[in-house]
Amino acid sequence: MTKSDARLARLRAKMDEEGVDLVVLGPGAHLGWLLDVHPHADERPVLAMVTKGHAGFLMPVLEAESAGRQTDLPFYEWSDDEGPKGALDRLLDDFGAGNAGSFVVDETMRADHAALVQDRLLNAKRQFCESTVGALRMRKDADEYAALKRNALQADRAMQAAWAAMKPGMTEEEVAAVARAHFVSEGAKPLFSIVGAGPNGAMPHHHTGTTVLKEGDVVVMDIGGGSEGYSSDITRMAVMGEAPEGFDEVHAIVNRAVEAAIEVARPGVKAHVLDDAARGVIAEAGYGENFLHRLGHGLGTEVHEPPWISASSETVLDEGMVFSIEPGIYLSGRFGLRLEEIVILRADGPEILSELPRDAKRIDV
Amino acid sequence: MTKSDARLARLRAKMDEEGVDLVVLGPGAHLGWLLDVHPHADERPVLAMVTKGHAGFLMPVLEAESAGRQTDLPFYEWSDDEGPKGALDRLLDDFGAGNAGSFVVDETMRADHAALVQDRLLNAKRQFCESTVGALRMRKDADEYAALKRNALQADRAMQAAWAAMKPGMTEEEVAAVARAHFVSEGAKPLFSIVGAGPNGAMPHHHTGTTVLKEGDVVVMDIGGGSEGYSSDITRMAVMGEAPEGFDEVHAIVNRAVEAAIEVARPGVKAHVLDDAARGVIAEAGYGENFLHRLGHGLGTEVHEPPWISASSETVLDEGMVFSIEPGIYLSGRFGLRLEEIVILRADGPEILSELPRDAKRIDV
Repeated sequence: MTKSDARLARLRAKMDEEGVDLVVLGPGAHLGWLLDVHPHADERPVLAMVTKGHAGFLMPVLEAESAGRQTDLPFYEWSDDEGPKGALDRLLDDFGAGNAGSFVVDETMRADHAALVQDRLLNAKRQFCESTVGALRMRKDADEYAALKRNALQADRAMQAAWAAMKPGMTEEEVAAVARAHFVSEGAKPLFSIVGAGPNGAMPHHHTGTTVLKEGDVVVMDIGGGSEGYSSDITRMAVMGEAPEGFDEVHAIVNRAVEAAIEVARPGVKAHVLDDAARGVIAEAGYGENFLHRLGHGLGTEVHEPPWISASSETVLDEGMVFSIEPGIYLSGRFGLRLEEIVILRADGPEILSELPRDAKRIDV
Repeated sequence: MTKSDARLARLRAKMDEEGVDLVVLGPGAHLGWLLDVHPHADERPVLAMVTKGHAGFLMPVLEAESAGRQTDLPFYEWSDDEGPKGALDRLLDDFGAGNAGSFVVDETMRADHAALVQDRLLNAKRQFCESTVGALRMRKDADEYAALKRNALQADRAMQAAWAAMKPGMTEEEVAAVARAHFVSEGAKPLFSIVGAGPNGAMPHHHTGTTVLKEGDVVVMDIGGGSEGYSSDITRMAVMGEAPEGFDEVHAIVNRAVEAAIEVARPGVKAHVLDDAARGVIAEAGYGENFLHRLGHGLGTEVHEPPWISASSETVLDEGMVFSIEPGIYLSGRFGLRLEEIVILRADGPEILSELPRDAKRIDV
């Protein structure tokens, strides 16, 4: 049995459990994980459809030869002239899914592509992938762990390469470019590289730009790359010379928040318990208002994927889940401070993938 | 009046015409065009909402400081803990849109983000952006034309740079890298670079890869870059030495198809008339089955945007519209041949933006 066949069988078992008749995926991470098919994505709908007894694709005719090299599943082809509706009807008829009572649609799909199916199955219950494909993707097997571990070590080295290059007068973008070049040098694809110097670091998703690094700056660096179809994500802090007033204290608080989450993370625990623990440490220190986001997110073929580790997440954690623990304290106008670990949950608690200490890196100026 | 204010006023006039109470946009090209706001996009919904009297954003709290630097419009912030529904309700109440009868949703938005609004306005009529934001974006003003012309000339030079480097033994990916490097050297962002050698060219969206160019190969090259917020897109053919049997004839047919579409393109003509004219030439020559896609697509801030030039398109063409004319003949197992011009429609017909002849480039081997 191929990996795709095995995953399809697991999906069908989940569909049974959840009472789902039809799963509809667009080009993207869910489909890549399930069938290892990566079709060209544009405004033309490409839909993978799975029922108990069938699996196949709604496929634009101009993509058929290229996509056909990636899968043996049947294609219901449509041309720009006809549009996709006729082919969709033929597919649903053949699959016996024209009167599906419950279907799942890929939440990342374009709204107009999802509407094609939704408008055709108006009386069916619509869900997104969380309890089917999403649930399956959360638990990583040994091969996936090995790939994620190799990715994590690449990110460690990219961080160190950027630190080695950093000096006053460089721009954020120049620092980010060093990290990206390091990923490329190891055959990985740079996926994102946030470098936030001084007050810019107080914006969690700061647009890395032309701000020049100067002595005394606190620098947040949040980088990730992709190789072997998996990804990395790490955040560490650097200080250009002497740390500003209050930095060491805030760093210690955020580090304790990481440790508090690690302490409570066990299989069977709900995800919000980790967020509660980390948030509790930060709130108790008086910075509750400055921790602007959830504690973490899953990581795998995507940089952000289930499980979500937030104050409202009821997801029960299980062995093999891989996710970030990344508390932060954002002091508008001053600096931001975030520390991020990627962990895999083992029977006795989280194993941290990175081998880089969480200490702030002191850059000589 | 700023450009954004002017576009917002034009959108509201369109909403009046079309009887639309509410327009909902996600991060992407529609929003970038309308308000010049480019928020970080992830699984957290960011929605721009426009009514007759109001405009504002549903905004994740962690993006607020960063996005707030791009706009003065009000934010309805939500945290990972609360989720977006409460903030959405507050926004709809304030905007008087809780009982909207008709709304438009960005067709490129994630399905789960669109569902937030759709599930809240179950009895309202839902449309996508085609007749509102999409209709406005189709007609380019003089500044937009100037930016698109500069982009087109960059793409011409990137094509020539790739041709100058091409030789037997190079891979498709190496040729593509030359084109991308050229865009970068002019300060543009490489957006896509399809290089299809020999039989690979018969797949319109071939994944450029490790296939090695060899003597006698026909090479399709379809490249585009982005600068000044606009984009380019051009396809030309190259031949490695002597063209294979039948190539020159097929090239002449496709070139005649381009000319036939240009000949009929005038303001007031429906888009399908262009597709019909080009397809007619190809069908008459016996290759109707081998022209796998529509004739063209609009180009602007996006590489693919309205108007769509297809056999079923009823869009009435107008002065200032910018779109591709790109017929192709795909001969599976042999080669593919596509020629693509970007044109702006003037009162007396199309003006071609590229200054590169459509002749196949002969590469000395």
